[in-house]
Amino acid sequence: MGCREELIKMALAGREATRLLAAAGTEVKNRALHSMADSLESNAGEILAANGKDVQAAKKNGVAAALLDRLTLHDKRIREMAKGLREIADLPDPVGEVEHEVIRPNGMRVGRMRVPLGVIGMVYEARPNVTADAAGLCLKAGNAVILRGGSEAAESNRAIGRLVSAGAQQAGLPAAAIQVVGTTERKAVEELLTLDSYLDCVIPRGGKAFLQWVAEKASVPVIRHGDGNCHVYIDAPSDLEMAEEIAFNAKVQRPGVCNAAEKLLVHQAVAAQLLPKLLARYAAAGVEIRGCRRVREIFPAAVPVVPEDWPTEYLDLIIAVRMVDDFAAALDHIAAYSSGHSEAIVTADYGHAERFLREVDAAAVLVNASTRLVDGGQFGLGAEIGISTQKLHARGPMGIRELTTTKFIVRGSGQIRV
Amino acid sequence: MGCREELIKMALAGREATRLLAAAGTEVKNRALHSMADSLESNAGEILAANGKDVQAAKKNGVAAALLDRLTLHDKRIREMAKGLREIADLPDPVGEVEHEVIRPNGMRVGRMRVPLGVIGMVYEARPNVTADAAGLCLKAGNAVILRGGSEAAESNRAIGRLVSAGAQQAGLPAAAIQVVGTTERKAVEELLTLDSYLDCVIPRGGKAFLQWVAEKASVPVIRHGDGNCHVYIDAPSDLEMAEEIAFNAKVQRPGVCNAAEKLLVHQAVAAQLLPKLLARYAAAGVEIRGCRRVREIFPAAVPVVPEDWPTEYLDLIIAVRMVDDFAAALDHIAAYSSGHSEAIVTADYGHAERFLREVDAAAVLVNASTRLVDGGQFGLGAEIGISTQKLHARGPMGIRELTTTKFIVRGSGQIRV
Repeated sequence: MGCREELIKMALAGREATRLLAAAGTEVKNRALHSMADSLESNAGEILAANGKDVQAAKKNGVAAALLDRLTLHDKRIREMAKGLREIADLPDPVGEVEHEVIRPNGMRVGRMRVPLGVIGMVYEARPNVTADAAGLCLKAGNAVILRGGSEAAESNRAIGRLVSAGAQQAGLPAAAIQVVGTTERKAVEELLTLDSYLDCVIPRGGKAFLQWVAEKASVPVIRHGDGNCHVYIDAPSDLEMAEEIAFNAKVQRPGVCNAAEKLLVHQAVAAQLLPKLLARYAAAGVEIRGCRRVREIFPAAVPVVPEDWPTEYLDLIIAVRMVDDFAAALDHIAAYSSGHSEAIVTADYGHAERFLREVDAAAVLVNASTRLVDGGQFGLGAEIGISTQKLHARGPMGIRELTTTKFIVRGSGQIRV
Repeated sequence: MGCREELIKMALAGREATRLLAAAGTEVKNRALHSMADSLESNAGEILAANGKDVQAAKKNGVAAALLDRLTLHDKRIREMAKGLREIADLPDPVGEVEHEVIRPNGMRVGRMRVPLGVIGMVYEARPNVTADAAGLCLKAGNAVILRGGSEAAESNRAIGRLVSAGAQQAGLPAAAIQVVGTTERKAVEELLTLDSYLDCVIPRGGKAFLQWVAEKASVPVIRHGDGNCHVYIDAPSDLEMAEEIAFNAKVQRPGVCNAAEKLLVHQAVAAQLLPKLLARYAAAGVEIRGCRRVREIFPAAVPVVPEDWPTEYLDLIIAVRMVDDFAAALDHIAAYSSGHSEAIVTADYGHAERFLREVDAAAVLVNASTRLVDGGQFGLGAEIGISTQKLHARGPMGIRELTTTKFIVRGSGQIRV
């Protein structure tokens, strides 16, 4: 059987599974999540053996240490995967909720019922724990999922997929609710992206080039998780102690992730007071500081910033700092260079806070809080499947609710169109 | 300037316009809509002259009478376009609403603010009134729109676009809020679909083959408006008088549109009582009846149905009728052949009604009401830009609210990530 035929077969099995998932109640799905967790823990040896093969192959191929770390599983990571699945069982189930019900003049009641998306393709890179997380989140939302992880983790993903699928089955759900693509051919990803008659959406996770490639190839609707060129803007007047804490936290607390700040904009009226202490603190934490001319007048140790810095996501201990004339100039800079992920202002000015919230175009805008707080857990959504930077369907952190859609439901008593 | 460069220039001008639209309040947008309506009415001569050229060319090319009718404008149609714009002004403005605000344990308030999508590409076919409708709906939602209608209506669309854009400008909004693609090259559509760095989404309207072509070409997120192979299922027990009215209305009231019924399923327990009268009434209304074997036993005048009938959208006075053993068989048939648009059951059984609403996977599911009621106006959304049959973002009739997205807004007091 060819690769495309194999994938279509999986998608059709997934579609069949969604009918049973739609009929299954919350209790059955929660029982399945616990059973999936148990299945991982009681078969940890099987996972570790499969992972060992992946790690060995990766070492042989000389992959970087960071990737090797993300790839490697051990008992604690398996326990964490299982714990994650049990936590998903504790989250509320949005399926079946009816929103915005109205009675129309002809007497029919029209509402929107939250329902599963259907069959989801999930395409991701090295970390094998994504296999368990994504399977759990999709299942709780009533979706069937077809998982295709990075080829470096192929053995691990197959083992994890087999075990969680068996766990779900033990609780009475169809095994095809969770399927892992067996082949490691790159072509399989391309085929998956064009199964628009069979899949309801594809969620890709990975680097910028990979996501662009997916956007170009896909005919299936895609929920894109983009990059984060996030700004912190220190306004005048503002609480400069708070400003320093937020700017420091946003850059340094975990620099390698998409909601870390990459740029600092500072109002000229507070720059001389704020920057010497803040930038020295950055420097002491190992941050490379790139500054505009006016910033370097205050902090000569800064490297000159170049135009290419402004649109760049470093994902590293680097920050580019610019002094701006006023609030309007900060908005202009952000409008020009934001990647639409997370943008923060520190201000004591009520009007500026309100305008920033209203006018800045990003998945999350924050007043007097660190960009690092933009996260499904921090926002109270529970576990997240990613952070969407596109505008259609879901924007910002995506939890279980964002893995559902709605349908209109009409309760009539004989209404016809006249 | 090449075609792509020209489109990028338009998209950037649209992006610039969205910043002013985001800052503009409801009052300004409503004033603009009235000014757009006035502009159309007081320059009706200009529109009719442009439309005359399109009609002449179409006649010369020997286009079908139905298309010619959709293309042709006259005073009444221009007044209707203007009236449509004024009605949009009367609809509520969703922009700026904050939903689901919560206070997190660290004290930050997290909410979702409804905001415009941004820059929308609208690709459609013959009817020039879509130019005015789409411009009005997009503007009310705070979006900039780039319109590309069918080449048969190019002169009309340019004239209407110029006039509504001028109207918006008179009310203080940027002219680039509404732009019409000047060229009639097919290539321009293809280019538009790949401007993923510049456009936030594309809304295509047209036939099935066109929509499939768009899905394959587009790297910009697409909101797809699909076909409607809609079913009416008559359950047992049910009110057979109501069943007859609904089944007749769903097929006959306006057969050429996507929410008209194409298939009738009838529970075997009520078939003998219902079908003779209902099918005779269909026949008297000029409907061609295609029946399964058991239906033809009751109504011998029916043409034998063939397997190709079940997935087909006729958009015509044709209906295929099938007798089913029970409720479960009806669900199976619908799951196999539904295009996911609108599906109706007529039933007196509470459990069947609830299961149908929960389990049938379509943009709209109805109990005891005609599929023809699936419409933005009937559902109380006001004017609609189309009916989405995809699951991401918007499903079913799309009004102004569906032309917006949300962003997370965080009101903090110095919160950082620990």
